[in-house]
Amino acid sequence: MSVLEVSHISKSFGSKHVLSDINLSFDDNKIYGLLGRNGAGKSTLLSIITDRIAADSGEVKIDSEDVDDNDSRLGLMYLMSEANLYADGWKLTQIIKDSESLYGGFNHELADRLIKEFGLDINQKFGKLSTGYNSIFKLILALCLPVKYVLLDEPVLGLDANHRELFYSELIQSYSDNPRTFIISTHLIEEVANIISDVIVLDQGRVILNQPVEDVLAKTHSVVGPEKDVEQYTKGLNVIGHNMMGTIRANYVYGDLDDRILPDTVQLSNFDLQKLFIFLTNQYEGSAKNEDQ
Amino acid sequence: MSVLEVSHISKSFGSKHVLSDINLSFDDNKIYGLLGRNGAGKSTLLSIITDRIAADSGEVKIDSEDVDDNDSRLGLMYLMSEANLYADGWKLTQIIKDSESLYGGFNHELADRLIKEFGLDINQKFGKLSTGYNSIFKLILALCLPVKYVLLDEPVLGLDANHRELFYSELIQSYSDNPRTFIISTHLIEEVANIISDVIVLDQGRVILNQPVEDVLAKTHSVVGPEKDVEQYTKGLNVIGHNMMGTIRANYVYGDLDDRILPDTVQLSNFDLQKLFIFLTNQYEGSAKNEDQ
Repeated sequence: MSVLEVSHISKSFGSKHVLSDINLSFDDNKIYGLLGRNGAGKSTLLSIITDRIAADSGEVKIDSEDVDDNDSRLGLMYLMSEANLYADGWKLTQIIKDSESLYGGFNHELADRLIKEFGLDINQKFGKLSTGYNSIFKLILALCLPVKYVLLDEPVLGLDANHRELFYSELIQSYSDNPRTFIISTHLIEEVANIISDVIVLDQGRVILNQPVEDVLAKTHSVVGPEKDVEQYTKGLNVIGHNMMGTIRANYVYGDLDDRILPDTVQLSNFDLQKLFIFLTNQYEGSAKNEDQ
Repeated sequence: MSVLEVSHISKSFGSKHVLSDINLSFDDNKIYGLLGRNGAGKSTLLSIITDRIAADSGEVKIDSEDVDDNDSRLGLMYLMSEANLYADGWKLTQIIKDSESLYGGFNHELADRLIKEFGLDINQKFGKLSTGYNSIFKLILALCLPVKYVLLDEPVLGLDANHRELFYSELIQSYSDNPRTFIISTHLIEEVANIISDVIVLDQGRVILNQPVEDVLAKTHSVVGPEKDVEQYTKGLNVIGHNMMGTIRANYVYGDLDDRILPDTVQLSNFDLQKLFIFLTNQYEGSAKNEDQ
């Protein structure tokens, strides 16, 4: 069992603190969802983990070895992101060849199938790809290189619904054929909610949630009924948002309900990860003006 | 009751037929979803409707008047799209002023609220906006200009989940305060499924579906059970897709079920708009894999 460990990572750009003392540990063969609002620091964190940019302080280690300038450790990770590492004039086939020799392997069988399924013309130059096919090409590299850690930053950028569904199903297939660790950063939270095992939420450069998805969802409770009964029932609980529909109120609770008695007039159910994310990250927004929208 | 009418519109780029004989009619005060795969012709159609590009043949009329080079008709429409109409060096406040005088009005009260809710810094230059705020600024123009037809091409590009939810709720509010016609093109089909009243699906430059959402969803049937029973039950029906889970088969039917008798072993339910879209547009994909680039 190996582990990717992020310890006390901080980073500022000018006077802006982008990441503040981030501590995370990524276990083998799990699929992590790394969620956060625009500007929360997700892309910066992924770039620091893969040594594309330097942290101001802190360390990233794989199996207790610092990855900084360490080719044997860096070769265990591939980051697919919006940043283009390849020149516009390079042919896709050449990029695959170069990547294969850099990483010491490439799953050509899988790549051929993905190229066909996605309808990618592999005899093109990198700069000629549309936004969607730029993503698709980098996803194929990410799935076919022999790395232990696959980091995907906005993997479905520019993909239509058909290609998104195809990607999710190929990701699951690839993971089941060859279990390894994935870290997926995305704004389409509900689309990955059934794929990820663990969820990490970054907000304003800090980790505000880091738990198995199952545990997180078990702690979400929407409490719906007449306003007075709902307010009475949720008194003292961690209410993170609410809605009014006429005289009916919904309070959204995150946490345990203890063993208080539920009135007959009030209905209890769970709510979804995207809703939880919105409530949690709006809370921190200052005057929290959006909390019930 | 006025109407926006698209008649026999065709358009090719070089040897590629992008739109082939498109006929559509947009009624007053409806919210249309214009769906299609990458490359299906959605953006080209919206640009032709607003006279940003010329069709090879066909006409676009508002109240029986051709919009071509017709300022009084063109002033009834605003297209928010990825194409940037404004120079990088222009200040946002100046763009608003210019748009206000061009369109003869602007809802400053709504704009001020949206600027605050989205946290947009209005004293910036257009070129300094991130992808997300570029979308947000153009959405504010779209909602605040006094047009009868609001055309939105990928309105939530680059927006995080919180801002997407805020936009959808402000769109509904704005529509209910001031009913007008919206045409929304998006890849995030499930997110708009509850907002749109009618769905239009373009596939390879042709309209393959054009109906009220309610009617469309009523014709979706997932038929789940033992393979033999499911195949027997769906014989002769319009099966557009299927799944196998062990020995259990799901057949996805689009259309009427007639009055055949459902076996006890088989379960029937509806499925969602995004799934329907994927099945319908995959069907037409044939071997023409690269046409959608």
